[in-house]
Amino acid sequence: MATSTPHPFDTLTPGEVRLAVAILEKALPGVALRYKRIDVLEPIKNDVTAYLDAERAGLPLPMKPARLLFSYFHRRDNGRFCKAVLDVDARRPVYIKELSSDVQGPADVDELVEMEEACMKHPAVLAEIAKMQLPAGYTVCNDPWIYGTDSDTETRRLAQCYMYIVAVDHPQTNHYSLPCTFSPVFDQVTKELVRMDHLPTGADHSTQPTRPWKPVECVQYAQDLLDQPLRTDLKPYLVRQPQGPSFTVNGQSVYWQKWRFHAGFNNRDGLVLYNVTYDGRQTFYRLSMCEMTVPYGDPRRPYHRKQAFDAGDVGFGITANQLELGCDCLGHIHYFDGYRTDAKGNPVLLKNVICMHEQDNGLQFKHTNYRNQAATAVRKRELVLQMICTVSNYEYVLAWIFDQAGNIEHEVRATGILSTMPIDNLDAANPTTVPWGTNVGPGVMAAYHQHLFALRIDPAIDGHSNTLFYEESAPLPVDPETNNFGMGYQTQATVVQKAGFADLDVTRNRVFKIRNDSHINRVSRKPVAYKIHAAPSQMLLMAPGSFARKRAAFAEHAMWVTKYQDDELYAAGEFTNQSRRDTGLSEWAARPDNVENTDIVVWHTFGLTHNPRPEDFPVMPAEHISVRLQPDGFFEKNPALDVPQSNQAFNQSTLHQETAEATCCSSDRSWL
Amino acid sequence: MATSTPHPFDTLTPGEVRLAVAILEKALPGVALRYKRIDVLEPIKNDVTAYLDAERAGLPLPMKPARLLFSYFHRRDNGRFCKAVLDVDARRPVYIKELSSDVQGPADVDELVEMEEACMKHPAVLAEIAKMQLPAGYTVCNDPWIYGTDSDTETRRLAQCYMYIVAVDHPQTNHYSLPCTFSPVFDQVTKELVRMDHLPTGADHSTQPTRPWKPVECVQYAQDLLDQPLRTDLKPYLVRQPQGPSFTVNGQSVYWQKWRFHAGFNNRDGLVLYNVTYDGRQTFYRLSMCEMTVPYGDPRRPYHRKQAFDAGDVGFGITANQLELGCDCLGHIHYFDGYRTDAKGNPVLLKNVICMHEQDNGLQFKHTNYRNQAATAVRKRELVLQMICTVSNYEYVLAWIFDQAGNIEHEVRATGILSTMPIDNLDAANPTTVPWGTNVGPGVMAAYHQHLFALRIDPAIDGHSNTLFYEESAPLPVDPETNNFGMGYQTQATVVQKAGFADLDVTRNRVFKIRNDSHINRVSRKPVAYKIHAAPSQMLLMAPGSFARKRAAFAEHAMWVTKYQDDELYAAGEFTNQSRRDTGLSEWAARPDNVENTDIVVWHTFGLTHNPRPEDFPVMPAEHISVRLQPDGFFEKNPALDVPQSNQAFNQSTLHQETAEATCCSSDRSWL
Repeated sequence: MATSTPHPFDTLTPGEVRLAVAILEKALPGVALRYKRIDVLEPIKNDVTAYLDAERAGLPLPMKPARLLFSYFHRRDNGRFCKAVLDVDARRPVYIKELSSDVQGPADVDELVEMEEACMKHPAVLAEIAKMQLPAGYTVCNDPWIYGTDSDTETRRLAQCYMYIVAVDHPQTNHYSLPCTFSPVFDQVTKELVRMDHLPTGADHSTQPTRPWKPVECVQYAQDLLDQPLRTDLKPYLVRQPQGPSFTVNGQSVYWQKWRFHAGFNNRDGLVLYNVTYDGRQTFYRLSMCEMTVPYGDPRRPYHRKQAFDAGDVGFGITANQLELGCDCLGHIHYFDGYRTDAKGNPVLLKNVICMHEQDNGLQFKHTNYRNQAATAVRKRELVLQMICTVSNYEYVLAWIFDQAGNIEHEVRATGILSTMPIDNLDAANPTTVPWGTNVGPGVMAAYHQHLFALRIDPAIDGHSNTLFYEESAPLPVDPETNNFGMGYQTQATVVQKAGFADLDVTRNRVFKIRNDSHINRVSRKPVAYKIHAAPSQMLLMAPGSFARKRAAFAEHAMWVTKYQDDELYAAGEFTNQSRRDTGLSEWAARPDNVENTDIVVWHTFGLTHNPRPEDFPVMPAEHISVRLQPDGFFEKNPALDVPQSNQAFNQSTLHQETAEATCCSSDRSWL
Repeated sequence: MATSTPHPFDTLTPGEVRLAVAILEKALPGVALRYKRIDVLEPIKNDVTAYLDAERAGLPLPMKPARLLFSYFHRRDNGRFCKAVLDVDARRPVYIKELSSDVQGPADVDELVEMEEACMKHPAVLAEIAKMQLPAGYTVCNDPWIYGTDSDTETRRLAQCYMYIVAVDHPQTNHYSLPCTFSPVFDQVTKELVRMDHLPTGADHSTQPTRPWKPVECVQYAQDLLDQPLRTDLKPYLVRQPQGPSFTVNGQSVYWQKWRFHAGFNNRDGLVLYNVTYDGRQTFYRLSMCEMTVPYGDPRRPYHRKQAFDAGDVGFGITANQLELGCDCLGHIHYFDGYRTDAKGNPVLLKNVICMHEQDNGLQFKHTNYRNQAATAVRKRELVLQMICTVSNYEYVLAWIFDQAGNIEHEVRATGILSTMPIDNLDAANPTTVPWGTNVGPGVMAAYHQHLFALRIDPAIDGHSNTLFYEESAPLPVDPETNNFGMGYQTQATVVQKAGFADLDVTRNRVFKIRNDSHINRVSRKPVAYKIHAAPSQMLLMAPGSFARKRAAFAEHAMWVTKYQDDELYAAGEFTNQSRRDTGLSEWAARPDNVENTDIVVWHTFGLTHNPRPEDFPVMPAEHISVRLQPDGFFEKNPALDVPQSNQAFNQSTLHQETAEATCCSSDRSWL
C-alpha cells in the first residue's frame, strides 16, 4: 500500500527542494537568497529507532519521526551566510540563523562555474596570459581551488585559481600537464582579485614574473589524443545473469543474501548505509565515509595552504559521477539517483550517482578431505554499492561491499589526475627536481601529499548498547611449569572506557572490536562482536600546531570513539572550508563521556601517503585501500555454510585448450 | 619446430621420473630404495641467463643449461636418508650422498597413508578407542602430524597422530569437530609406538586417562550433512568470453597483455613464475611463495611442538588440489599439470594443479572533466594463476595476479578447517575456556596460531644488477624561511648495503623498493624501480631462544635481502621437518655480502596472527592477505593508458529495473 510520507532514511526529493525554498521565501519575505545546499537533516536517532524496531519485527509502524530539511544559503541583502532547519510536515522553519563570519560553507557547483568564468575574464589574469605568448591554438583554463588556511583572521570567502595551458580544443585535453606559473586569488563573493600569486618553479622558494612559455609536450590521457595505438588483444569479458540479480530493491531498501539495508544518499556523504541487518539481526545503524583531508607536502607559498577536505569543503554527493551502463560496473546494474539544489533553489537531478551490482570474488571457502579428495568449494558472491566522485582533478571510487559471510568492506580506489605544479625544464635532459615531489612530465611536478579518510561507523551490534575494545596478541612469559618451550601466547583486551582516540599497532596485532556485553555467543562464551579490519596507515605528517593539524585533528590518530549525539556526523566538523580548527572529533572525543555499554560512534582514520610515481600520470592506476567490518563471535559458526556449492552446472566455465599452432612449437618431450 | 630438450624452466615429466629411477638403480645396484621426491633441480642461473637473453631478443639460442634432476630417498638396506643430483643428458648421477641423521626429509603421500593405516591398527590405539565406548556407528580416524621439535638430540623420524571421532560414514564428515583426548607418537620408519600422549582438556596443563565419550553434536560443513537448508536466492553469475581469453599459452610459456612469463611448477613451491617480462623488459627472474610456518600458541604438551612448515615439511606442490572446471575459477580456464613420484618411483600425474583465467577487477582508472562530464573510464582486467593446497585440515589458496599497469600481486587466502583440540564440556552451558584458544563447538577448541609466509622475490629490474632500499616519509623541520607553516615533508632513502634484514614501519610509511641504478627514468630522473607493497604483520610471537624461533628465523623480520647464490631457495632452509634451527636466511643473510648493485634476492615475511573466531568453524571463510609488486618509476607514464576504454558495446551490461511488485510498495512521494 502506498504510504503518505517518505521513509526516514529516504533521499531528498525535488518536491522537498521546492518546499524548502517556499518555506524560506515565506519566512524571509523580500530577501533575495543564494542557495548553497538543501538536503534532508539526519533524523533524530531516538525518534527513528522505535520505528525501525517495529519495521524489523513486522509490527504495526509507529508514527514516523519528523521529516526535517536543512539549507545553507547566503542572504544577498547583507551577504551573511545562514543555516536553516525546516519542518516538512509543518511546512515552517524550525530555525533560521546567521552564522559567524568565520564560517565558510562548502563549495557549490554554480559558485565554481561563476568563479572559473570570472577568473578567465579578469584583466589581470588576461595580462598574465598574454605574457606567456602562447602559440596559436593554445588557450588557458583554471581550476578554482579551496583556499585553505594560513591566518586566524581571514573572513573573506577566497579562491585560489590554478591556471593551466590548454594544448588542444578537446573535451578531455589534459591541461594538468601544462600548469602556468601564476595563480590569482579572488574573493569568491565579490569576484574581486585579492592578489596575483606567482608560483615557485625552481628547487627553492623563489618566484619569477610570468615568462614566455617554452612549449613542451602535453601528456594526454584521452584515447583519441594518445601518441600510441590502443591494445588490440583484450577480448570481451561478459557477465551474464540470465535469472537476474540476487538482490531485490524496494525504493531505497535493498535485500540481498540475508542482508537488508537502506541505501541513503545525501549531498555531503554521498552514499550512506542505514539500518544494516543480517538475517534480522542489527549490525550497524549508519555507515559512511564522512571526511577526507588531502594536505600537500610542498612547503612553498601558496602551496602551504593546499589542504582540501573533499567531503566538507565540497561534498562526495554533489561531485558523484552520473554513471553510465557498461562503463563503471559489469553485470546486472541497479542505479540510484539523488538531487541537489542550484543557486536559485531549483532541484537538480543527480542521475545514476550510485550503482549497485553483484560480483564474483573467487573462493569463499574450500576444504578437501585428502583421504578421498572429496571437496566442498563455495564461491564468494559480493554486492557492491559504488559512487565515483570527481573533485577537480582527482577521482575517488568509494564502494561498500557486502559478502555472504557477514563481512562489510569499504573500499577506496584513488584515481584521476594528480594535482600538478610547474617546474623548471630549462635543460630538458636535466630538469629541476624537488625533494617534496616527483616530476611526472616535461615542466610538470606532482607534490607529495596524503589522503586521510575518516570512516564513520555507528554500530548497532545486536542493539545500540555497544563497547569498543582492542585486543593484542602477546607472548606468555617463559616458565618451566606453564610455558617451558616459549610457545604460548594469548590475547590481552583493553576496553576503551572514555571517549577519545587510540592508535594502531601492527607489531602487537592490535585489533579493535565492537561488542555487545549483553549478548553472549553460546559457542565461544564471549560477547557478540564485530572486528574492524583497519587499514594501518601513516597519520598526518604536518607539524604539531600547524593549521593542517588543527583543522584535521581526526587525521592524527587511527581510531576514535565518541558517545553518540545527534548532529555529530563529520570528523572535522560541520564547516571545514577555510576552517582554523576542527569542530568535530577534537571536541566530541574530548568530552569526559563514558563509552562503555552505551550508544557509541567509532571513527577510523586511514589513508595513503601518496608520493607520486611517473606511472600515476597522466591518469593514475587506481590505488586500493580497504577497511572491513568482520563478524567476530557474532555468529556461532560460519554464516555462509548454507551458500550452495560451486559447480559447473551453475557456473558454466569454459575449458581452454592450447591452440594447434601453439602446441606445435612447444617442446617435444617424447625423447624421454 | 620441435626442439629436442625441454625449456630450462619446464616442469618434471613422467619420463624424467622414470629416468631418475633408472639412473639411481644402476648406480646403487641391489639396494632397495624408497623414493620420497624426484624433481627438477633449479637450473644454474648463470647458465640460463644467456639463454633467456637470446630468447627475449629473438636471437639464435645458445646451448641450453644442463637439465638436472634431484631425488630424496631412503635406502632400505641401511635406513639412511639420501639426496642425489642426476644429469639428464649424461644419464648419470652428479652425486649421491647420505645425509646426516639429524636431517629429516619432507612428508610424502605414501608415507602419510602408511602411517595413518598403521596407527589405526596398533593395539595401543585400539585400546584407547575402546575406552571411549563410542555409540554404534561412530568410528575413529587420525591425521598424522609433523612432529615438530623440542629436543636437540632426537634423530628418529616421528609422527604425532591426532585422533578424531568420525560421526557418520560420509566422505566429508568433519572429524575435526570431535577430537579425541589421546594422541599416539610413532616412529614413522619402523611404525613402532613411541609414546601415548594424553591431551590436556581443561584450563590447565593436566591430563586424564581416556574416558568414555560424552556425545556432542558434530559441527558439519558438507552440504548434505547440514542441519539447515541451503540458500535458494543466489542467482547464476556467468562469465562469458565469446572470443576466448586474452592470453595465449605455449607449453608453460604464457603471454598476456604485454606480460610474458614461464609458469613453472615443482613439488615443493608448487607454482613458480620465471623470467617475467613486460613489453620485453625484464622485471623478475623468479617469484615464489617459498615457505610458511604455522606455530601454535597453546603452550601445553604435546601442542608445544605444533609448528608446521607447510612448504618445507610437506610441499605446496604435492598438496595442490586437482582442480575441477567450474568450481575453483570462473570463466575461460587453462590448467597446468604436474608430476610427483610415489614411494616406488612411479610417476604420478598431478592433474590441473594450477588454474589460469582472466578476471575483471572493477575500475582501473577514471577521470571526468567536470566542466563537460567527458569521462575516460578503463576497466581492470587481471590474469590469475592459482593453486589450492590442502595441508591436512587447512587450505591455502595461493594466487599470482597480473594487471595491465605493471603490477604483480601475490594473494593468499587462508581457508579450510582449523586445527582443533578437545576441551572439557562437562557443563554444556558453561564449558571450559582457555586464554590461548577459542571454543568453536561443543567440546572443541581451536588454539591461537600464526601463519608466517616467506615470499621469495628474485628481481631482474631491467637486468640482474639491483639494489634494495627503503624510503620513509618524514616532516621537514619547521623553519620561518623554508617551512613556515609546517606543511613540508620529503622522503628519506636508506640503501640496504649489506645482506641482512629490516623491519617495516607503517608510522613512517617505510616502503621497500628494488631499483636498477644503471637505468634512469627520463621523466622522474630517478633509477627505475619496483616497489614492494608489503603486508604489515605481527612477526613470530614465540620466545627468543625457543625452537620455534631458531627454526624459523625468517619469521622474525619482515624484509630480508641476500646476495644471489644458486640453491638458496627456501627461507627456513632445505630441510625443515624436525629441524632444530633454520639453515636458510639466518645463515645466508649473515654473510657479509655487499648487496648494492648486484644480483640480489629479497624475501618478504608476512602473515596472519590467527586467533580463531567461531565463524571460522567448521570451515573458514577465506581470510585474504596480499603483497603487490608495483612499478615505481619503471615506466615513464601510466603503462595501461593504451587499454581501450570501457563501454557498453564491449561490456554488454544489463540495466536492473525495480519489479512492479516492489514499486507498488514503495513510498508515494507525489504529495510533495
